[in-house]
Amino acid sequence: MRSTSPHEAVPATTPAASLVFTTVLSHGPLTRIEIARRTGLSSAAVTKAVRPLMEVGYLVEGVDEGARPAVGRPANPVRVDAGRALFIGIKVTGDEIIAVLADLCCRIRVARHVRLTGREPGAVLPSVTALVHELLTEADGFGVQVRGLGIAVSGDVDRAAGVVRYSPFLEWRDVPLAEIVETATGLPVTVDNDVRALTVAEQWFGAGVGLSDFALVTVGAGIGCGLVVHGRVVSGAHGVAGEIGHLSIDPLGPPCHCGNNGCVEAIAADPAILRAVRSATGRPVTTAAEALELARSGDPGVREVYARAGEAIGRAIGSVVNLLGSERVIISGEGLAAYDLFAEGIRDAFAASAFGTAAQCDVMTRPLPFEEWARGAAATAIQSFIGSDTH
Amino acid sequence: MRSTSPHEAVPATTPAASLVFTTVLSHGPLTRIEIARRTGLSSAAVTKAVRPLMEVGYLVEGVDEGARPAVGRPANPVRVDAGRALFIGIKVTGDEIIAVLADLCCRIRVARHVRLTGREPGAVLPSVTALVHELLTEADGFGVQVRGLGIAVSGDVDRAAGVVRYSPFLEWRDVPLAEIVETATGLPVTVDNDVRALTVAEQWFGAGVGLSDFALVTVGAGIGCGLVVHGRVVSGAHGVAGEIGHLSIDPLGPPCHCGNNGCVEAIAADPAILRAVRSATGRPVTTAAEALELARSGDPGVREVYARAGEAIGRAIGSVVNLLGSERVIISGEGLAAYDLFAEGIRDAFAASAFGTAAQCDVMTRPLPFEEWARGAAATAIQSFIGSDTH
Repeated sequence: MRSTSPHEAVPATTPAASLVFTTVLSHGPLTRIEIARRTGLSSAAVTKAVRPLMEVGYLVEGVDEGARPAVGRPANPVRVDAGRALFIGIKVTGDEIIAVLADLCCRIRVARHVRLTGREPGAVLPSVTALVHELLTEADGFGVQVRGLGIAVSGDVDRAAGVVRYSPFLEWRDVPLAEIVETATGLPVTVDNDVRALTVAEQWFGAGVGLSDFALVTVGAGIGCGLVVHGRVVSGAHGVAGEIGHLSIDPLGPPCHCGNNGCVEAIAADPAILRAVRSATGRPVTTAAEALELARSGDPGVREVYARAGEAIGRAIGSVVNLLGSERVIISGEGLAAYDLFAEGIRDAFAASAFGTAAQCDVMTRPLPFEEWARGAAATAIQSFIGSDTH
Repeated sequence: MRSTSPHEAVPATTPAASLVFTTVLSHGPLTRIEIARRTGLSSAAVTKAVRPLMEVGYLVEGVDEGARPAVGRPANPVRVDAGRALFIGIKVTGDEIIAVLADLCCRIRVARHVRLTGREPGAVLPSVTALVHELLTEADGFGVQVRGLGIAVSGDVDRAAGVVRYSPFLEWRDVPLAEIVETATGLPVTVDNDVRALTVAEQWFGAGVGLSDFALVTVGAGIGCGLVVHGRVVSGAHGVAGEIGHLSIDPLGPPCHCGNNGCVEAIAADPAILRAVRSATGRPVTTAAEALELARSGDPGVREVYARAGEAIGRAIGSVVNLLGSERVIISGEGLAAYDLFAEGIRDAFAASAFGTAAQCDVMTRPLPFEEWARGAAATAIQSFIGSDTH
């Protein structure tokens, strides 16, 4: 039984307090001096921001149990008290729901997968609600309040309104997801695009820590991209951003579901690869695994399909770094399974298209399982909780 | 005769002070309450930031002379004292140098043009120095100190290091411009990419005022782009950013000077248009004006060249808004002279490539003469002076 409302008073979060919290979350334990240096805030502003966060117990002094006490005058490092609150993060794919229970440090405590029986809201939403209630029961075992729920869905998602405007994989249009799930669960709900949510997790805990400008490119059923510029995830004035999949790189390229031609997604996403493999081989290939097997067995036509896909991805990454001069591009997604077949195309096309010093960008791969995407959804719930989504 | 050093002490500028100064510069006069609302700072932080700026006289209370006093309790609006300091801004093109003397509100007081006799540093730098000394003499007439000099050059410019790394039009490589001109003039010098400098002017005083996400696309001798994301001009981790001209949009397109194929610049910049016009007509056309005349006289081949250029620009703008979800794209540059020939291609290609709600971006044209580019250079000098370049 939960004793307090999940909407219980949160300390008034100023931009400085949110910045301090997320800095300690990513880099802590930190002394106040280190916090000031990393945030660019004055010592007085740091002290003022830390105090209310300590009063409610989100930040505590001292390093984790077991750490050796410092010799001499203690520097009083500050860290996030992971056990002070719990959050639920959910990633909805076309086939399953992945849910995690995460602590205030966004560490995964429990993870659950549920297969979907259908993609329409009427099939997905009851599964989401059932999964949330299951995790709320698990949370009772920790004796800690669940303070928020984040849901990550692919497509055009209006986070501020809590609405999935258009999700091609789910075939959802204008679903007021936050409102529906809030009513069903009683939790504050944050809804965001799945790649943007994963980008928050990478920024806080992954390969983006400490970088003010990076991109996360996800390859698989679709081609997605989360962009961090000036230290913040780009959301776009109208909700669309990071649509690397719909950069058109070839006017004579295949038609895309968006209505344009030669989009990266129409060349390099799984459905496009399967279509091209069927056309090259005349075989009724329907899964990425089958296509991959044909390529690995040495079929030159199939290998060429992957090479073209890699080239499209490399050119798209080149476009991102030419525009934004990103310090790093992280390639992830289930499509990494075929990375050996993409790699040369990506490398060569990136080298050809990156302009001048933009080519110094560090392009790396990083496998991120779906639990990590759900963790990203939990991170968006922590953002909303701590107010760092609004600054 | 200048009585004080241009390097005289500037008040220690905190991030908050810089933010307050630039907010008042763009939107002032503003009351402290309005400043707090626009900046997201607390009232206490605004008061603390305003005080030292008033002590040195950069901000003053009260509206400009001639404004009607408010009825009732005065709200004490704060504004920038335009006459408190002067700055010089210089734009270097392939053909001429444009220089302006601007006040602390970045209003142009004097403008000068000088034709270049050559493009190598040995020809350009003495002209720059002579022009600066001329404007310093003009400044003496105002009885106000020139506090900084901004120089805007096209190409890959490392602002932090003050070095022009590569300027294709000038054929400069690794010219330590800031150091050379500082030595020659005694002024603190800020060197930046010309489109980024113009973008600062648009953000502070032009069509970007009040927008946190917009793009400025310049069309002409080259295709440039300045990007503002989260309220700040994007510079890139390695100095390259906004290279819209080197988005490759057609793998079978013409070769570009960067080594790639099908870059926007290889299709839509003046030299590319002239090449295509010569090829379509067999005539030895060498200037944009001649090409334009042929198009206006109805030559279908030449009109088709402009249509293709417009399409390339429209697709590039589509790429920008798909990645960044910009609220507005401002098209400018000397190429606007041919805008009637570009317009349909830009509109159709943008509509085809913009994904979902990204299409809601407001695409507009705005003529900006070279004085405005020089004003942008002066704005970068004001940024350096007030410390808003480092936050």
